[in-house]
Amino acid sequence: MITNEKTDPTLAHDPQSAPTGLSRRGLLGLAAGVGAAGLAVGAGAGSIAGVAAGRQKAGDAAASVFPYFGAHQAGITTPVQDHLHFAAFDMMARTNRDDLVELLQDWTYAAARMSQGLDVSATGSVGGSPEAPPDDTGEALGLAANGLTITIGFGPTLFETEDGTDRYGLAARRPASLQKLPPFLGEDLIPGLSGGDLFVQACADDPQVAVHAVRNLSRIAFGRAKLRWSQLGFGKTSKTTADQATPRNLFGFKDGTANILADDADALAAHVWVGAEDEPAWMAGGSYLVARKIAMRIETWDRLRLSEQERTFGRDKGEGAPLSGGKEQTAPDFHATSATGSPAIDARSHVRLAHPDLNDGNRILRRGYNYVDGNTALGTLDAGLFFLSYQRSPEQFVRLQKALATDLMAEYVTHVGSGVWAVPPGAAAGSYVGAGLFA
Amino acid sequence: MITNEKTDPTLAHDPQSAPTGLSRRGLLGLAAGVGAAGLAVGAGAGSIAGVAAGRQKAGDAAASVFPYFGAHQAGITTPVQDHLHFAAFDMMARTNRDDLVELLQDWTYAAARMSQGLDVSATGSVGGSPEAPPDDTGEALGLAANGLTITIGFGPTLFETEDGTDRYGLAARRPASLQKLPPFLGEDLIPGLSGGDLFVQACADDPQVAVHAVRNLSRIAFGRAKLRWSQLGFGKTSKTTADQATPRNLFGFKDGTANILADDADALAAHVWVGAEDEPAWMAGGSYLVARKIAMRIETWDRLRLSEQERTFGRDKGEGAPLSGGKEQTAPDFHATSATGSPAIDARSHVRLAHPDLNDGNRILRRGYNYVDGNTALGTLDAGLFFLSYQRSPEQFVRLQKALATDLMAEYVTHVGSGVWAVPPGAAAGSYVGAGLFA
Repeated sequence: MITNEKTDPTLAHDPQSAPTGLSRRGLLGLAAGVGAAGLAVGAGAGSIAGVAAGRQKAGDAAASVFPYFGAHQAGITTPVQDHLHFAAFDMMARTNRDDLVELLQDWTYAAARMSQGLDVSATGSVGGSPEAPPDDTGEALGLAANGLTITIGFGPTLFETEDGTDRYGLAARRPASLQKLPPFLGEDLIPGLSGGDLFVQACADDPQVAVHAVRNLSRIAFGRAKLRWSQLGFGKTSKTTADQATPRNLFGFKDGTANILADDADALAAHVWVGAEDEPAWMAGGSYLVARKIAMRIETWDRLRLSEQERTFGRDKGEGAPLSGGKEQTAPDFHATSATGSPAIDARSHVRLAHPDLNDGNRILRRGYNYVDGNTALGTLDAGLFFLSYQRSPEQFVRLQKALATDLMAEYVTHVGSGVWAVPPGAAAGSYVGAGLFA
Repeated sequence: MITNEKTDPTLAHDPQSAPTGLSRRGLLGLAAGVGAAGLAVGAGAGSIAGVAAGRQKAGDAAASVFPYFGAHQAGITTPVQDHLHFAAFDMMARTNRDDLVELLQDWTYAAARMSQGLDVSATGSVGGSPEAPPDDTGEALGLAANGLTITIGFGPTLFETEDGTDRYGLAARRPASLQKLPPFLGEDLIPGLSGGDLFVQACADDPQVAVHAVRNLSRIAFGRAKLRWSQLGFGKTSKTTADQATPRNLFGFKDGTANILADDADALAAHVWVGAEDEPAWMAGGSYLVARKIAMRIETWDRLRLSEQERTFGRDKGEGAPLSGGKEQTAPDFHATSATGSPAIDARSHVRLAHPDLNDGNRILRRGYNYVDGNTALGTLDAGLFFLSYQRSPEQFVRLQKALATDLMAEYVTHVGSGVWAVPPGAAAGSYVGAGLFA
């Protein structure tokens, strides 16, 4: 339900109620270009819980719906959905702290609704005045939630610009570990595919649902934040539940065999969730996201003999078993030798360099996707892996990436995009994502 | 099964057998860069029908598999799958007629296998020599066929280059109607997104399966044809069976309501399939494909009031009913008037200008997809509709597009890519796609 009355959701009487509508700025984002008088189409305040009808009438009754509010944001340990639309945003010039808070409130309102299979507002795609633009762009009308999760977080530049400006009075609250990533071997970063004050990760089992989510959040952000870069992905390259088959990356290998599983509470507490004892307190229950756009030299890789492909990964291609033997889930034996006496698993193989046993138990939660962005002028695929990992501290990724400096795979990939963001805990019902940062 | 012995599939003893393997050139395409001696890993000739094992062991037993061989190519009236990878290829310099025939034979062999959920060859992703690159790139290993169809056809430039060169001795066999499309209002074509000697349309319910198909066909074409441009799509924008819900385009409207259905044999015969009485004879049972990459001014559209959006389409946004009243499938009444006395359906609306009743019954079979290619530097979505239509003659599309010259929608779209191709009939078992052209 849209209301012209801005209600501070943190002050809502009913702690179970969600933000009650889009802000005036959020509404203007949807409708600028027509007279603002055309906007006053809602009546009264409504909560998400109060909205019964919506897109959920769609045919696929089995479509998953994940709760939006909770201790952690959805989309981190949620079973990996089939499709990704990732977007990084920059706050626009001359925005202030109130604009930022209002944007997060508006995004929470719309994200909570969309994740339940609803339009971004009660009037939605077609229920508003015919003389106003619809609040919702409509391409997901008739589609179920399809497991949509929307995850939101804060980049280093939100706390302090690279020239040291504290635009929103947040510098003192910046997590000490939230720093621009150091340079790594093998990267050739494109600024237009890196960084961003904010990120939105939309995952769903229907790409149109994920695209709809990013498009509408971008629209709501109008005048406050601007889409900086974005990426579509498919063919999830890691699993988060034991019953998901391990997917394959575009090198044709299983990827994410040793990922942290969503039901491994101990590992999540140790490696993924920011603990109550960590600093800053507002991040407790949150995590840190690292995104890396990793371009693959597809055609070069495809010309490698099978044995060299397998040596590079340290696993066989069919089963995904470590080259020391066994099945996919068999632990690698880095002391095993081949018939010629050389190590069965090459010392520079990906599996060895990245293995927790050789990195003081360092682990991350992977959530990446494959991407194909078309082709180059030479007729080669413009494709690779859009790597996403969640961890308790960005330092875990930094350590891992440094360990991979001599990775055999480095010859076949180039990291072209990069970003790191603090991912606040889940919003409580009645509040908004990131509220703790402003408390 | 790979064989080093090139067998002319048109001369196969068993008319039910498919091409029996990749040509020497096809194998070199897979493996150039290692000694050719490493390639002789197959033994004897095998047909597709003889291959029992393959990717089809995958979990999803319900996954659709469509026959590859038949009177018509699959992927035209096949119920529209969820995902598209489209690719246009150019023949490389210094290729001759034999190269082209051999490429089509190799593509037929690999396409027939992949459409059945198999690797591109019997040794496939992991069954070859460890000292040779695998024949198959492997990222679809473990995935079922997912309804994969692979459709192939010939552009005007294959018959005669734009400077009049008849590279392959085909000019005399060129269909008279296969001409570069005339210029249309509202287009601003990018050469790198237009044309192509050949096209491959891969459609599947899993994008990784469609991508795998194009990637492997491109690899097999090495040294003979080069990927010129390509496009991924999702959210099919038309339906081909009555039980499919009409999907929505990125303007949020149902699209393809009046499409020709796959079981409407009369309409297919009249509007889609080239008839035995048409010229040239080798095209009987084939069709003509027009592709148009149509960029949408998404953010501008989203600012239009609902009534103007609906006026542009001539249909309402929620139900998709014509503005003259009724439900989605109700025939539009172009004589109906609104309360103010003006036509209920605007004279320049999309539905009116395109309607068969006002165009001497002219119809096409649509098969388009939505696309999102990321975003522009201004933060707007780089998105739109990848329009694909099949018709008995390209003239049907030309007529329709000319009728749309005054379309209200033209303000919100720009055609940036374009191509037209002759789509030969389906290959007979034991033969290859397009064989009739060379007979």
